[in-house]
Amino acid sequence: MPRSKSLTLSTVPNLPEIQPGDDLPALIMNALAQDEISVEDGDIFVIAQKIVSKSEGRLVNLSTVIPSPKALELAERIEKRPELVELILQESNEVLRTRPGTIIVEHKSGFVCANAGIDHSNVRGPWGEPEDWVLLLPEDADYSARVLRSGLERLSGKRIGVLIIDSHGRAWRNGIVGTSIGLAGIPALVDMRGKPDRFNYSLRVTLIAAADELAAGASLMMGQAAEGTPVILARGFPYELAEDRAFRLVREKQLDLFR
Amino acid sequence: MPRSKSLTLSTVPNLPEIQPGDDLPALIMNALAQDEISVEDGDIFVIAQKIVSKSEGRLVNLSTVIPSPKALELAERIEKRPELVELILQESNEVLRTRPGTIIVEHKSGFVCANAGIDHSNVRGPWGEPEDWVLLLPEDADYSARVLRSGLERLSGKRIGVLIIDSHGRAWRNGIVGTSIGLAGIPALVDMRGKPDRFNYSLRVTLIAAADELAAGASLMMGQAAEGTPVILARGFPYELAEDRAFRLVREKQLDLFR
Repeated sequence: MPRSKSLTLSTVPNLPEIQPGDDLPALIMNALAQDEISVEDGDIFVIAQKIVSKSEGRLVNLSTVIPSPKALELAERIEKRPELVELILQESNEVLRTRPGTIIVEHKSGFVCANAGIDHSNVRGPWGEPEDWVLLLPEDADYSARVLRSGLERLSGKRIGVLIIDSHGRAWRNGIVGTSIGLAGIPALVDMRGKPDRFNYSLRVTLIAAADELAAGASLMMGQAAEGTPVILARGFPYELAEDRAFRLVREKQLDLFR
Repeated sequence: MPRSKSLTLSTVPNLPEIQPGDDLPALIMNALAQDEISVEDGDIFVIAQKIVSKSEGRLVNLSTVIPSPKALELAERIEKRPELVELILQESNEVLRTRPGTIIVEHKSGFVCANAGIDHSNVRGPWGEPEDWVLLLPEDADYSARVLRSGLERLSGKRIGVLIIDSHGRAWRNGIVGTSIGLAGIPALVDMRGKPDRFNYSLRVTLIAAADELAAGASLMMGQAAEGTPVILARGFPYELAEDRAFRLVREKQLDLFR
């Protein structure tokens, strides 16, 4: 008789406020130890983009940004601060849509998201200054994930995966969901194509966005409020750990019916 | 010191193949008992659309469908069987995009999905016939969820939630993810708007699609292969159970930049 299998998504409380230059793997391992949580082979650390960007010092003070004519024009049209619009354009390959307050872009990484993932809430400057600072996405979130994984593997002595997530809006549906932007050691996509179905008479055409499913589930436990916890330990991921890149989740522009 | 909190997503194995007219709550409770899993207040049953539709007898034999001229024209253009195209059109409010083999529609429920959610794999007729049967989405998946919840609450004596999910493709990203189509007793959206951020200087603008985050996480544990398990027991959902409707997840057409 088959037994129940579980995926457990656990918050990692007691992380300090992250500062530029902080050693995230050491802080995470320390927080786990405070909660007497041990790491096991196959565990996946799901980490909010925000603390990765903060530790990498991806802070920009808007007063240092000089808007281009294009940014000034767009800023006026959508009623957004020109310096922020300039940063969004610098961080993007292409503008897909605009509406008051929001610019939907293809970020330099290839992902489609609002405002190039630039974040204003819960952001302070490198010395704690409250005003005018924003946070950019990591330069290369797959690279960030690989660095974090090697640090966490070294400190834990276990084979683990790392998934960096952000919260994205979606076409057609209200609300944001946790979404993968970088990963190391876990599959972005799991390919069921060509496997027979239950009755062996048709072949599946299914490509599962496993990393995005994990991102969404973990995001649920991170919360978005002041008491949010930016690291989730996932145990029981049902697929083999594997080398992959989050970029594989980007649909090729020519194959996308909604661009 | 805050303690770690966990969301646990557990498969419910040992469910039989579901047939039209089956009493899903009874079969689920029986399968749980076989695995010695008890139900607790606040648990959420995440249930694959496929077994809900099967139990509701939403099977159609394609040989009984007569394609309209419009379906014949579209079927030829996208190389899809005319009877199936006819059913897709009947189940939809509007066709958004087409490409060979796929029609992206607004389903009658308001959700945007491929092929009106009509499923061909792992489907047999009411008497086990292997050929020509397809499965439609439930007529009203929120209603289905409410009926399932009352059955499961009666049998378990606990206050629980029900979430019916399907696997949807997405704009901009490869792969499918578990997505909410009906729910009872759990919030579709959780509104953080107006709550202060960590530094109390800006107000959040965040609306979290909590049901879709749970749908995706649970879908990860369902799997899509022959050995898939169509029911997941979720314990530790971080928000209050509440009355809501999946329809709230549908973005209003006029507010959607990608239609």
